[in-house]
Amino acid sequence: MKGEIIAVGNELVSGKVQDTNTFYLARELATYGFEIHSIRIIPDKESLIVESLLEASKRSSFVIVTGGLGPTEDDLTARSAAKAFELPLVQDPVSRKILEAYVKKHRIKMHDNVMKMAELPEGAVKLDRRSPRAGFSLEFNERIFYFLPGIPGETRELFRETILKDLLKRAKDRPTVSTRVIKIFGLRESEIENRICDLIPEFNGLSVSYLPNFPEHHLHVTVTGVNLERVESLLNKFVDMVSERIGEFIFGYDDDTMESVVGELLKKRRSTLAVAESCTGGLIGHRITNVSGSSDYFKVGVVVYSNEAKSRLLNVDGDLLVRFGAVSEPVARAMAEGVRALGDTDFAVATTGIAGPTGGTPEKPVGTVFIAISSHKETVVTRHLFEGNRLEIKSMTSQVALDKLRRTLL
Amino acid sequence: MKGEIIAVGNELVSGKVQDTNTFYLARELATYGFEIHSIRIIPDKESLIVESLLEASKRSSFVIVTGGLGPTEDDLTARSAAKAFELPLVQDPVSRKILEAYVKKHRIKMHDNVMKMAELPEGAVKLDRRSPRAGFSLEFNERIFYFLPGIPGETRELFRETILKDLLKRAKDRPTVSTRVIKIFGLRESEIENRICDLIPEFNGLSVSYLPNFPEHHLHVTVTGVNLERVESLLNKFVDMVSERIGEFIFGYDDDTMESVVGELLKKRRSTLAVAESCTGGLIGHRITNVSGSSDYFKVGVVVYSNEAKSRLLNVDGDLLVRFGAVSEPVARAMAEGVRALGDTDFAVATTGIAGPTGGTPEKPVGTVFIAISSHKETVVTRHLFEGNRLEIKSMTSQVALDKLRRTLL
Repeated sequence: MKGEIIAVGNELVSGKVQDTNTFYLARELATYGFEIHSIRIIPDKESLIVESLLEASKRSSFVIVTGGLGPTEDDLTARSAAKAFELPLVQDPVSRKILEAYVKKHRIKMHDNVMKMAELPEGAVKLDRRSPRAGFSLEFNERIFYFLPGIPGETRELFRETILKDLLKRAKDRPTVSTRVIKIFGLRESEIENRICDLIPEFNGLSVSYLPNFPEHHLHVTVTGVNLERVESLLNKFVDMVSERIGEFIFGYDDDTMESVVGELLKKRRSTLAVAESCTGGLIGHRITNVSGSSDYFKVGVVVYSNEAKSRLLNVDGDLLVRFGAVSEPVARAMAEGVRALGDTDFAVATTGIAGPTGGTPEKPVGTVFIAISSHKETVVTRHLFEGNRLEIKSMTSQVALDKLRRTLL
Repeated sequence: MKGEIIAVGNELVSGKVQDTNTFYLARELATYGFEIHSIRIIPDKESLIVESLLEASKRSSFVIVTGGLGPTEDDLTARSAAKAFELPLVQDPVSRKILEAYVKKHRIKMHDNVMKMAELPEGAVKLDRRSPRAGFSLEFNERIFYFLPGIPGETRELFRETILKDLLKRAKDRPTVSTRVIKIFGLRESEIENRICDLIPEFNGLSVSYLPNFPEHHLHVTVTGVNLERVESLLNKFVDMVSERIGEFIFGYDDDTMESVVGELLKKRRSTLAVAESCTGGLIGHRITNVSGSSDYFKVGVVVYSNEAKSRLLNVDGDLLVRFGAVSEPVARAMAEGVRALGDTDFAVATTGIAGPTGGTPEKPVGTVFIAISSHKETVVTRHLFEGNRLEIKSMTSQVALDKLRRTLL
């Protein structure tokens, strides 16, 4: 079943709001094996809504329309649908009752605008028969049209609770689809491709998309087939072969994040962590604490933005700061060892660098960063030169630091 | 001049990648007074590209197409354009030369695929005559079509450097447009609307959009007219009146961020700052250090995720932690005062709370947060109950903490 999505809203074509409904719907539909072959975004204008609905009715078995169902003057979708399909607008008694109760409960002044939300094209079926939310479906020329409000939360709820179920009932020859996301850090796209491209043709019904997700690469692997068991076994076999070829550059799968993987590894070892940040300014601590349960292993972080703080909090020798500068191998080492002692932890990470745009020198240009990983065994410091703006350099530094910690923990 | 945008790419309709080019282009075009009345996203499929181009040629004076210009098999846009406009595909000599030089310089194996990028519909004009990047324009039926690669960086560069200039030359009766974004935190949308809605009808050619940008509200004010001076003066007058009515809830304008505004205020007073974070885990430090030059005022941050760290680093009395718990008014106060002493700074911020999803109790449910602002005058602690998931609670806490600091500095 091929479908399409139409998003209606002046704010969406004038660059004021980025539409997120169409992307959400396309992703969900793909997961269930439905193909979307057109997404259209148009303003709240009757002639364009009518035109889009008619064009869609020619090529698609199902059409999802979002937006333009509210009570205000620029909400024209229901009226336009009636016009496109040459149906009268009639007051839906179920909607009317719900709206009257809603208005009473919330003590809203009743005016015509509210009741406009009860006016639907003849034959329309309200999607949620208990709530005042707009949203209806309509069949026309053996095509099914779903109309949803533009508010992302409502769109998602109605999609999951009614539309998806209805579509699954209608679809007969829908293929079985299984997907896996392989998350890679530290290899270029072309390097990944070289390592695995010969595998892909060997697998029937398998497709791979390379999606850069700065600074990571995500491989979206999809297997389509008839038999679920066969599809799953093919997917697992392929993922195993990719893992063998790409090895430790793969840090996780599906919903894993670099920080959640690091957290799992620390938990497994019952180890604790301390972090000393200069150029990352707190970003590493922020990422680590985005993981629920991180208080089990994350004990302390310090953001030492001044030389004085480095010395006072972390016992970094003032002499090192003078001789080598704050952005240097010895200072990164002293920071990591200092914060490990401060937190009395098993592991410590430290960063010091020049995030820019100012502060670079010929010997240490903007993007120069030292990363130290300290354990009871040793402290390893690496020097890097990252590209990009201030935020990108901070982000890349936090990513490499977490990845180095991950590899130390493996 | 009314225009439209078409984005081509399988990954864009299958929910693998959210298209960002169309939003970028729509926003830029609106800034310069061009109206977009359709955005279409379609897969790399010849029939759909042809259909979209022909439909667009009926209703739009200009059309911008992104994607499908690369060297691989699924890049079909140039060929589809030739088919739509019934033009032969010819090899563009300029493109050929550039590609040959590029291939030689980068020692890429020359194959047919690369030369495919030199094949353009007859009459097409390459957008950038020095680089190997694809991208061309084509006139058809007095309409102008621009074709751009789908890579966001290249799309933006070619748009700014060539397309925008060309469009501005073609547009004769383009109106003058001035915009201002007013950034508000701490009021609901309906409260903002109530305070200012009576002002809007008094201003001719002025429109206001309310755009929630969690947890902030951004008012996009646009004035359209003929005379630039009049437009600007109207805009300034309106913004002044809004400022009067909304007062300190407005934290900035246009590109300001909460952290850049706080930074400016600290700089002006030549004051310094220290931060002690528990539930925000480093996010406040991260945000403060996203501002270039923040080392002038930001001295030290600590992330104290354990009771032990709170006591050892910040001298928080162990008795307070036992009697009131880590998430309490006295502990927030002691943390702020402790980190201000540690950093020897003028101001300090501290946060302690339960970000969830676990750790809540009936007295202190998930979302309970204490925020302390300490100066040489006093330490003020406030208690909050924030809603949302872990990241939203962290984000809201960092925002309220920075806003409280901003108001203290005013």
